[in-house]
Amino acid sequence: MSADDFVVTPWHVEGDIDYNKLIKKFGTQKITPDLSNKITTIAGQDHFMLRRGIFFSHRDMDRILEQYTKGNGFFLYTGRGPSGHTHIGHLVPWVFAKWLQEKFGVKMYFQLTDDEKFYSKDTTLEETKKFAYENALDFIALGFDPKNTKIIINTRDIGTLYPIAARVAKKINFSNTKATFGFTNETNIGMIFYTSLQSAPCFIEDMPVLIPLGVDQDPHFRLTRDIASKIGKTKPALIHNIMIPGLGGPGGKMSASDENGTIYTTDTPGVVRKKINKYAFSGGQPDIEQHRKLGGNPDIDVSFQYLRIFFEPDDAKLKSIYEDYKSGKMLTGELKSILVEKINKFLSIHQEKREKARDTLNQFLLDEK
Amino acid sequence: MSADDFVVTPWHVEGDIDYNKLIKKFGTQKITPDLSNKITTIAGQDHFMLRRGIFFSHRDMDRILEQYTKGNGFFLYTGRGPSGHTHIGHLVPWVFAKWLQEKFGVKMYFQLTDDEKFYSKDTTLEETKKFAYENALDFIALGFDPKNTKIIINTRDIGTLYPIAARVAKKINFSNTKATFGFTNETNIGMIFYTSLQSAPCFIEDMPVLIPLGVDQDPHFRLTRDIASKIGKTKPALIHNIMIPGLGGPGGKMSASDENGTIYTTDTPGVVRKKINKYAFSGGQPDIEQHRKLGGNPDIDVSFQYLRIFFEPDDAKLKSIYEDYKSGKMLTGELKSILVEKINKFLSIHQEKREKARDTLNQFLLDEK
Repeated sequence: MSADDFVVTPWHVEGDIDYNKLIKKFGTQKITPDLSNKITTIAGQDHFMLRRGIFFSHRDMDRILEQYTKGNGFFLYTGRGPSGHTHIGHLVPWVFAKWLQEKFGVKMYFQLTDDEKFYSKDTTLEETKKFAYENALDFIALGFDPKNTKIIINTRDIGTLYPIAARVAKKINFSNTKATFGFTNETNIGMIFYTSLQSAPCFIEDMPVLIPLGVDQDPHFRLTRDIASKIGKTKPALIHNIMIPGLGGPGGKMSASDENGTIYTTDTPGVVRKKINKYAFSGGQPDIEQHRKLGGNPDIDVSFQYLRIFFEPDDAKLKSIYEDYKSGKMLTGELKSILVEKINKFLSIHQEKREKARDTLNQFLLDEK
Repeated sequence: MSADDFVVTPWHVEGDIDYNKLIKKFGTQKITPDLSNKITTIAGQDHFMLRRGIFFSHRDMDRILEQYTKGNGFFLYTGRGPSGHTHIGHLVPWVFAKWLQEKFGVKMYFQLTDDEKFYSKDTTLEETKKFAYENALDFIALGFDPKNTKIIINTRDIGTLYPIAARVAKKINFSNTKATFGFTNETNIGMIFYTSLQSAPCFIEDMPVLIPLGVDQDPHFRLTRDIASKIGKTKPALIHNIMIPGLGGPGGKMSASDENGTIYTTDTPGVVRKKINKYAFSGGQPDIEQHRKLGGNPDIDVSFQYLRIFFEPDDAKLKSIYEDYKSGKMLTGELKSILVEKINKFLSIHQEKREKARDTLNQFLLDEK
């Protein structure tokens, strides 16, 4: 644990993250009300994730907007490390990316890093590749259009990625990866090389890229930004979302490998209800009497946070839940019931679309090289 | 320079190599007369490169032979880093590999590592890929049969290589590459990862591999051998040739990037004559009078060495040249003339086959993944 009492790297998130400190530590920019307004103005609509600071930080988002208003395009890129089934936390940047794509009318790439998860976890390539295809279904289920959206699966599409990654890799040395990721002499050489493959999609189109993603992934693109000019390219721009807490509460992000700490998009209604009731960290009091008297703490309550981050876009409704829970009028069980209903409603539609996505998956894949 | 006064690594060869010391340093086995006889017996023919100790060292060649006589197959694999045109030194392991292929009736893979040369030299991927195709022509010109011979070009065939390389890379850490190649914190991450791509063809077929190659490439496969059992595979076997000296004489291997130190397969007869006459290190005396009196030293004379290594397979003829030069009966100019004629005769046929190889190249390439 660092002196700041929190750790945020692409492979490890721990502690109670202070996002203002993180902005300073990573050297990113806070999304100011002014920048947020500019996005809203150009998009012609606001987005609750922006309004609520779920997306809180950026690099060069102002440049992207300025160039865009001058008629210069950009494209979007985000991704996922397929270590297991998709959980609801993963959907945050994807949903926001979809909104950006619609409002700005731009092309989008989605990268599934089956190799990365193979390098970093005790698993097989067959397993991570299987989950890459599973995760792709969740992505497609959000309603992306195959005409301007492409899915990259690293081991499948390495023919496209590798020549770009090689140019990146030549400009990054082991010291850079040590400083950025904390690698040691014991780190495997797949992991050491891997960052260049996560960089590669930044340069797949001959225009600037904007990457909406969890802030824990920022270090990869810090390296990419450092070397972009050395290979004659524009630095990638980024817009970062906060970490989505696991059911166990603050102190880490939701992890696909902690089965009870996670709501998967494939969970049944019964499993969702059980997980939320049993594992969702509560900001409530130990018993009803005290809760009625002292009220709950929605700011640390995971069920409330899930509503804020994803499941209750309506500000008025969210405010009323916040106040009722804080005053003690709403009990923890009631709050959890609201969330369970929201999740299950979302998942029943999502799971249907997810099954249909099997039929359209091929349209999203890159042309084979 | 090491305490041994010579350095042999895949990217740097320097000094007067003591091959007996190198065998100890690398931990390989000397090719004993007994082993050499076994190869000859099974092949039904001997080969001058074996007879003369051009191939001098091995790892597990005895195991390959023992298994072969029991009816268990193997396949061959060698390669080339395409930093420039092929020079005559490159042909040594290829010619020997072709002989092995014919005598043992086995499949052969030839890898062109355009990415490696891009990572290790001040060049572009376009340039190294261009030379990969050029070098492939020289390989094909030696008469390989496309039915059982496949050419791998790393950036082209990365789709086949990468999933295998990933399994290798996961088992090798930065310390291993430091110890094996002398990498530092300043080594680029492409180079660090690269060894796993040179390993990959070892596991492309579900049978043991035998690799005929220059001893400078042994370190890559030392790593491969260390990790083979960790990925459930048989250790690759190797048979090593000595380094082919540059025209400038002992103290390094012939390098494709030193234009005057090298005979390229694309050189014209006039260029070959000029290079040999002007640059080939001579074991002769300063003037004719002294040469007649003291005689020359064929053991350090590059022209004689080229005859021994490649251009004069006939032992009786070679012996007579050796004795005549040593006694002073043959002058340096005469020795050089013999070599020039041999090289130009070889190249006139080779260059014709090389041009014809353009028509069959596609038959040798891997099916696209």
